[in-house]
Amino acid sequence: MPIIDRLTRDLFGEICRITLIDPHSHINPHAAASKSLDDILGYHYYTELAHSAGMNQLALSKDVPARERDRAILEHLPRIDNTVQCSWFVEIAQAFLGFQGDRVGPEHCDALCDAADRLMAQPDWEQQVLKKTDVEKIFLTNDFDDPLEGFDTQLYVPCLRTDDLVFNLAKPEVRERLYKATGIHASNTEQLREAIAKLFERFVCRNAKACAISLPPDFAPMPVAPLDLTNAMSELNGGSTDANVRRTCANGVFWMLAELCREFKLPFDLMIGVNRRVYQSGVFQGQDLFDQRTSLIQYAELFNAFPEVTFPISVLTSVQNQELVSYSWIFPNVVTNGHWWYSNIPSYIEPDTRARLQAVPKTKQIGYYSDAYKLEFILPKYNMYRRILAKILADDFVRPGIYSETQALTLARQLLRENAQRIFGA
Amino acid sequence: MPIIDRLTRDLFGEICRITLIDPHSHINPHAAASKSLDDILGYHYYTELAHSAGMNQLALSKDVPARERDRAILEHLPRIDNTVQCSWFVEIAQAFLGFQGDRVGPEHCDALCDAADRLMAQPDWEQQVLKKTDVEKIFLTNDFDDPLEGFDTQLYVPCLRTDDLVFNLAKPEVRERLYKATGIHASNTEQLREAIAKLFERFVCRNAKACAISLPPDFAPMPVAPLDLTNAMSELNGGSTDANVRRTCANGVFWMLAELCREFKLPFDLMIGVNRRVYQSGVFQGQDLFDQRTSLIQYAELFNAFPEVTFPISVLTSVQNQELVSYSWIFPNVVTNGHWWYSNIPSYIEPDTRARLQAVPKTKQIGYYSDAYKLEFILPKYNMYRRILAKILADDFVRPGIYSETQALTLARQLLRENAQRIFGA
Amino acid sequence: MPIIDRLTRDLFGEICRITLIDPHSHINPHAAASKSLDDILGYHYYTELAHSAGMNQLALSKDVPARERDRAILEHLPRIDNTVQCSWFVEIAQAFLGFQGDRVGPEHCDALCDAADRLMAQPDWEQQVLKKTDVEKIFLTNDFDDPLEGFDTQLYVPCLRTDDLVFNLAKPEVRERLYKATGIHASNTEQLREAIAKLFERFVCRNAKACAISLPPDFAPMPVAPLDLTNAMSELNGGSTDANVRRTCANGVFWMLAELCREFKLPFDLMIGVNRRVYQSGVFQGQDLFDQRTSLIQYAELFNAFPEVTFPISVLTSVQNQELVSYSWIFPNVVTNGHWWYSNIPSYIEPDTRARLQAVPKTKQIGYYSDAYKLEFILPKYNMYRRILAKILADDFVRPGIYSETQALTLARQLLRENAQRIFGA
Repeated sequence: MPIIDRLTRDLFGEICRITLIDPHSHINPHAAASKSLDDILGYHYYTELAHSAGMNQLALSKDVPARERDRAILEHLPRIDNTVQCSWFVEIAQAFLGFQGDRVGPEHCDALCDAADRLMAQPDWEQQVLKKTDVEKIFLTNDFDDPLEGFDTQLYVPCLRTDDLVFNLAKPEVRERLYKATGIHASNTEQLREAIAKLFERFVCRNAKACAISLPPDFAPMPVAPLDLTNAMSELNGGSTDANVRRTCANGVFWMLAELCREFKLPFDLMIGVNRRVYQSGVFQGQDLFDQRTSLIQYAELFNAFPEVTFPISVLTSVQNQELVSYSWIFPNVVTNGHWWYSNIPSYIEPDTRARLQAVPKTKQIGYYSDAYKLEFILPKYNMYRRILAKILADDFVRPGIYSETQALTLARQLLRENAQRIFGA
Repeated sequence: MPIIDRLTRDLFGEICRITLIDPHSHINPHAAASKSLDDILGYHYYTELAHSAGMNQLALSKDVPARERDRAILEHLPRIDNTVQCSWFVEIAQAFLGFQGDRVGPEHCDALCDAADRLMAQPDWEQQVLKKTDVEKIFLTNDFDDPLEGFDTQLYVPCLRTDDLVFNLAKPEVRERLYKATGIHASNTEQLREAIAKLFERFVCRNAKACAISLPPDFAPMPVAPLDLTNAMSELNGGSTDANVRRTCANGVFWMLAELCREFKLPFDLMIGVNRRVYQSGVFQGQDLFDQRTSLIQYAELFNAFPEVTFPISVLTSVQNQELVSYSWIFPNVVTNGHWWYSNIPSYIEPDTRARLQAVPKTKQIGYYSDAYKLEFILPKYNMYRRILAKILADDFVRPGIYSETQALTLARQLLRENAQRIFGA
Repeated sequence: MPIIDRLTRDLFGEICRITLIDPHSHINPHAAASKSLDDILGYHYYTELAHSAGMNQLALSKDVPARERDRAILEHLPRIDNTVQCSWFVEIAQAFLGFQGDRVGPEHCDALCDAADRLMAQPDWEQQVLKKTDVEKIFLTNDFDDPLEGFDTQLYVPCLRTDDLVFNLAKPEVRERLYKATGIHASNTEQLREAIAKLFERFVCRNAKACAISLPPDFAPMPVAPLDLTNAMSELNGGSTDANVRRTCANGVFWMLAELCREFKLPFDLMIGVNRRVYQSGVFQGQDLFDQRTSLIQYAELFNAFPEVTFPISVLTSVQNQELVSYSWIFPNVVTNGHWWYSNIPSYIEPDTRARLQAVPKTKQIGYYSDAYKLEFILPKYNMYRRILAKILADDFVRPGIYSETQALTLARQLLRENAQRIFGA
């Protein structure tokens, strides 16, 4: 994307020289880079947009040969070539697959697949992608029973993802996984705390730098008395599906996680606002949406109760961004964190970033994370953010004389690496 | 309005050459064009803004001669000359009434009235306006008992408006109208379905291309068992005003409409978010407002239950636009539809359009509709939209190299006619 | 702040020549100007941002010498030098303290304190600040028992602030203050009305021009029968903390205030959306936040019941701005009022102002107020607004040919003084 304005272009160029720390991704450290075009086009953004634009889901079935799946998605790409997600794909094709054109369609399927097969088979492909992306650390999203073995935890930083513990503890398979991971049959509050503390210990030993969770719009955490949590656990384990029991259990486990974050000095990433399985026939990972009617006031008691815990907050909608700005401006332990999912498009990144930069201490802002499943996506996603950041720094800081260019780049460095380094102790 | 930037101006010029399909209006096909200035200034935007700015409603009384009504509104125009609605009027005066100035006030009342009387009396005035506006089809808003006769349904496309059936079935006059239109006394679920199916048949025979309804912010449709609907109808017919009974009835009829849309293959236009009669002493059609606390999650069950029905969605507030973007991105049967009412000003059209263009498949966006009551309004309203569209295409697509100018105009053509053609089968 | 664009710069220059009327502040008329740097840096924006960025609150303790408090805040200023609030401070230092630099840090502490001590000790400092600021009238926020004596009420215009009466009448000290101010023991509806009417009389005699209140997001006023209010007052006075009783009392007093505004012909400023004491360990005045889930529909009954009372409305969030635009467009007695607190940053002022200017009669918009505690803040805050206003007038009005420059400046004059003059009768 050519940037017309010279100051913005210069800032963008300099910003691109800042080595990244990517504080949230879904990278699998055992298969971080893509092995084929299918790993790229299988990203849920493409499957869900292609399906939304008319592609039958049968095309995605596992029985279909990978190249035919890719062709089906590419056939629908012209219907979504206006989207920013499509532009990430074009940028990947250009940056990593030697693609020369500006637009991709089904006519490029074989060439792109062939190029991907050839290039990604190189033994140092992962290193090539990391080097071109210039990223120093990439935070992961690890299940609580992830063994965290067999990869470089200095590069791929573990994070303890806790959705299952908070919302799915009623499922026998989750309790079984917890038992296997800890050797503890957790049937009351005390045992549960002991078990989860074991998880924290193991994660921290393996260089974990955050605890993380995604939360539905109506979640409003509050402390639960130990006996109440024990009772709720018993009822759940006994098969109860009562909403109050489930809520008590979720609240109790969530509060316990915050206590353990305090004890183990881990920031607690909250990703606020997602409703799961809203479109029940959607593609894999393309079923979740939201209800804009949510508020950070639901977390006021939590923020007050844990002044020692830092809460990097992601919100799903731009509507919530003003709350995030204001809560981060007031609460020392609340920190803005990236641009999540449905808000991760320029239309929302730009006003949200601008408001944060005008009213939140600059030391309390984690500018961006990739949320990527494969390494190749870090580059185009960060480029999207960096272009917007360059524009805001030019228009709101350098031209009005608030910052020199050098000072603007210092701010960019804080947003892209130093704040994440300091806040997560990475 | 002169556009400074050359690329934007060129794009605007080309966009204006695209023959329009206007997929939602309140045009009366038997009196589509205005007959006097009073038909223009009687538009609720002018009466409500003039009243809000201090005009006594007595000035609008039917006893007042039309020209004096117009003069009263024109006297208040200087107080609202900042508004975009006022600029539509100036553009109408310039484009259709030979007005040479830039600003209109009471001093122009007689000249404008005279010009309107003279010009609009021409037998081919309607054709002149249609030609100058370059619009091929205009969708209507027809009461369910509209005879749909005496006009060209290829030009003025009928749409079945169903607010009365869903929300006012308790009123004896509505039941009487339904009986007269169908010959069926609908006192239970089965009879009601039979009656409404008759309406659908008649509408489809007369080239209707959509079913449509406006909905309050707290409406959350869900299916109703036939017996429950029958019981609710009985209670309502018996005079019950119980809120639960009313809700059951509204839900039951609404769901039945969705089933009939499926059966008759009609898209179901949902216009979500209006509270009626909020300002009880307001002018005619100037009493409705809203509650921003509403969510498309209320429609998740509907969207899941009717994958075969296309739902073109209008939202009343820009706050809801991110939900609309996200739901259209995920649900194949959800489509963005225009910029409605309180969101139909450039401040909201621009960010809302930008977000849609960045994240919704381009085939799933109906760019704009006029919502006009008289033909003369289609031109200035579409021009407002086309200026914004030209600016977004220049800034977000052509300059960054995502689209060529030709490709940008192809997208404009989809937004302004082809998507409406395909989605409504018009 | 240099403005690049020439038209915008010219408009800004001319706008700055408009003598201001500041329709809302927290100025103490007995100590309107600052006496030291501590009066400037003690503003809650600096204490709360510095605390949020890591400053221990002990640094703010009253035992700490003023200069050390200032130094502590200045030491944290580099962490918040990105914020617009910090830019206000730099502008004050430049405009009033002879500061020559662009950025302020702890190294300037002594020089700034010395300069402030020297300059602010001048007997005509207040007059100097007023003159440089070019402000003609400044509205105050007066407790209901403020004696309103010893200052020029033509310059410092009293406003009756009523939060205590509506929300804290249960507190014995508030009832005692009411008794002392009126000589009436208000233990039933009639006595309460008599007492509050006495307050209105006294305020109006002392040139008060508005009644004002800030309201939590869930407040939804409704009338209360006199007997019900009497009963609620008895229960509250008897020590009840029941939420329904409190609500009845708040509603009853609020409605009574609206009746008295009607009787005494005072506008009723509503500042909608603040939750008090959300961050319980926050600095003084740095504890309040909000819940974005609020709606002006909660005030529909009030606006309908009091067509003779003008309600200048401030909303706390930009999310509510579209409601404010729409309600002001429809209700003759609803008027937009400034940019409050968490929305008082350019990111929100700009879109909110733009939407108001496109859809609300220009006579119904009070552009801005300072909300200042000390006179020196009026200049930089208004400059922030004036820069944005100049940009909007250039981009949306002058360049598109809607207004000439002269007409644009006429609009600016309405926003900055004439509308406030007319609406408040000041």
